[in-house]
Amino acid sequence: MPLFDTVAATPALLIDHDVLDRNIERMAMSARTRGVTLRPHAKTHKCPDIARLQIAAGAAGLTVATVSEAEVFADAGFGDLFVAYPLWVDAARGARLAALAERARVTAGIDSAEGARALAAHAGTGIDVLVEVDSGHHRTGVAPGHAGAVAAAAAEAGLTVAGVFTFPGHSYGPGRPGDAATDESAALRTAADSLLAAGIAPGILSGGSTPTAHLDTSATELRPGVYVFGDAQQLELGTITEAEVALTVLATVVSVRDGVVVLDAGSKSLGADRAPWATGYGRILGVPDARITALSEHHATVAWPSARGTRTGGPDVAPPGLGSRLRVVPNHVCTAVNLADELVVVRGCAVVDHWPVSARGCTI
Amino acid sequence: MPLFDTVAATPALLIDHDVLDRNIERMAMSARTRGVTLRPHAKTHKCPDIARLQIAAGAAGLTVATVSEAEVFADAGFGDLFVAYPLWVDAARGARLAALAERARVTAGIDSAEGARALAAHAGTGIDVLVEVDSGHHRTGVAPGHAGAVAAAAAEAGLTVAGVFTFPGHSYGPGRPGDAATDESAALRTAADSLLAAGIAPGILSGGSTPTAHLDTSATELRPGVYVFGDAQQLELGTITEAEVALTVLATVVSVRDGVVVLDAGSKSLGADRAPWATGYGRILGVPDARITALSEHHATVAWPSARGTRTGGPDVAPPGLGSRLRVVPNHVCTAVNLADELVVVRGCAVVDHWPVSARGCTI
Repeated sequence: MPLFDTVAATPALLIDHDVLDRNIERMAMSARTRGVTLRPHAKTHKCPDIARLQIAAGAAGLTVATVSEAEVFADAGFGDLFVAYPLWVDAARGARLAALAERARVTAGIDSAEGARALAAHAGTGIDVLVEVDSGHHRTGVAPGHAGAVAAAAAEAGLTVAGVFTFPGHSYGPGRPGDAATDESAALRTAADSLLAAGIAPGILSGGSTPTAHLDTSATELRPGVYVFGDAQQLELGTITEAEVALTVLATVVSVRDGVVVLDAGSKSLGADRAPWATGYGRILGVPDARITALSEHHATVAWPSARGTRTGGPDVAPPGLGSRLRVVPNHVCTAVNLADELVVVRGCAVVDHWPVSARGCTI
Repeated sequence: MPLFDTVAATPALLIDHDVLDRNIERMAMSARTRGVTLRPHAKTHKCPDIARLQIAAGAAGLTVATVSEAEVFADAGFGDLFVAYPLWVDAARGARLAALAERARVTAGIDSAEGARALAAHAGTGIDVLVEVDSGHHRTGVAPGHAGAVAAAAAEAGLTVAGVFTFPGHSYGPGRPGDAATDESAALRTAADSLLAAGIAPGILSGGSTPTAHLDTSATELRPGVYVFGDAQQLELGTITEAEVALTVLATVVSVRDGVVVLDAGSKSLGADRAPWATGYGRILGVPDARITALSEHHATVAWPSARGTRTGGPDVAPPGLGSRLRVVPNHVCTAVNLADELVVVRGCAVVDHWPVSARGCTI
């Protein structure tokens, strides 16, 4: 009888509800203990059912990446949403934001004076803003010392500046979370000083990626996303163990040859993310020495440990036969979830629910 | 006025209908001229509107990757579908295949005797099969000389063996299409001989990736997919020019600093595919020296050529300002299309239609 035989077809995204519960509670407790606000990033799960569990555990509100994600979560009844992105607001997006602000408290990111003026011009002044600063990831955000100038422009345009935010994305590398947390802390302090110098109270200092979320910084608010599910990146960074992996992709062995096993989950199910330091295109749950050496749209090519001759002490596991089912841990769970319409919720080996990925594809 | 200002929100997938028409006609003409059957792979577009144009130009039927893709195209009226994948057929998938076979001619791939027997046991013998052989990509498929043994097992199980197929995926590398086509040709000939030795007429010899589709091999049928749209991989392989790129992702500049431009199209719009030989995470249409150096879920970080100091002779283009719109060519168009619900069809600068990506997410 194949694994999870009540799941009719693979690939399927499975959520282990018990692990999910523990992940949500652990992060909530960590935030509570340190007295910081938790505003989880909903781009990871895109699922109101999971957001409700986060709020029930004490989260103050949700973070989202796009206006369309905010719309989905506002429709589902969530009343406090931060779009952590330096939005460029034209007339169409402004109208959507203004409509959103009538049914939820909406905060948006800005990283330029022009962006602030466009937001005020097209969405009105019912949207509060946080100024994005660059803490070392070098993506978006102004230099922390320039936050005051952007904040002043926003205030001049009539907007309420609620604080500053940063994403320490350079925490995503082996050995990097500690330094990234230090960078984040310094950037948020410098940005707060810059706002004060411009005569604006800094209020919220928002930070926190999953790798840095348990480390102390000057952040008053944390926005981790991946922690709910975990993924192979977090496993390989050492921020979690297999026991904390809540989402896996159930896959079937469709082809076998010479120690190589091919699964029916490819880049259209797992996503194609692969950091330079990753060991492969994901991991096989329970078989730590297996390596996903290649990924096509509907194929994962797995070098099985007993045939690789490069075992690193993991268990000796017989290669699975045709039709066997395995659970794959995607490298980056946020992009894997965005490929699915539904999550199959299990407790132990029993399917207990199906949750829609309501904000799947919400990129606009 | 921003580019394609009638498109309300970015990121959006644009299809240039004129370029699409030319791409479809060029491949159809190439197949016609050489007397080979064209069975385009619909996994690239997942769109019945585009499949209809391919059939109208002379394609004999469609290739799909999954049973659920076959179901979508059968629902849309397509009557000849080949699932080019070594399916593992259990009771649930077998019932779906049997139902499909009542409304379309359905052919499926196999690459093992066990797979053939499972197909016959659960789907019946109304599905013809093609034996997959490995021509050098080393993914799925048996060694060409073993095709006869798999075919004999399929025949023994009561299935009709219609021929053999291969995917020369190792054509995806600079300078490789020529050798890959030679490998494909040899593999198909060896497989045909292997079937003959087992007393089975080889019939269809199906091959062809987009990089090899215009090269002569022993294939009697070609299954290219990407050619309809082109993508950055094909550009960088030299198999197409920018004039043959039919699909782009319209994106907005949301942040600018020191010669770096950040766009609102990230891995959740472009896909995260990046071959080792790729110059970046996609290309900017009309700005050949721009480089997408980093990709997050909703951010593409672009090093602008005039600021990089590494220009290779491309035009000197002023960096775009905040709110400007650019067109991004994804690295791998098949995964980008699978992230979108709709394609915005343009002729010149006018939006002329919207086509649904009906088979988006059809992985099962």
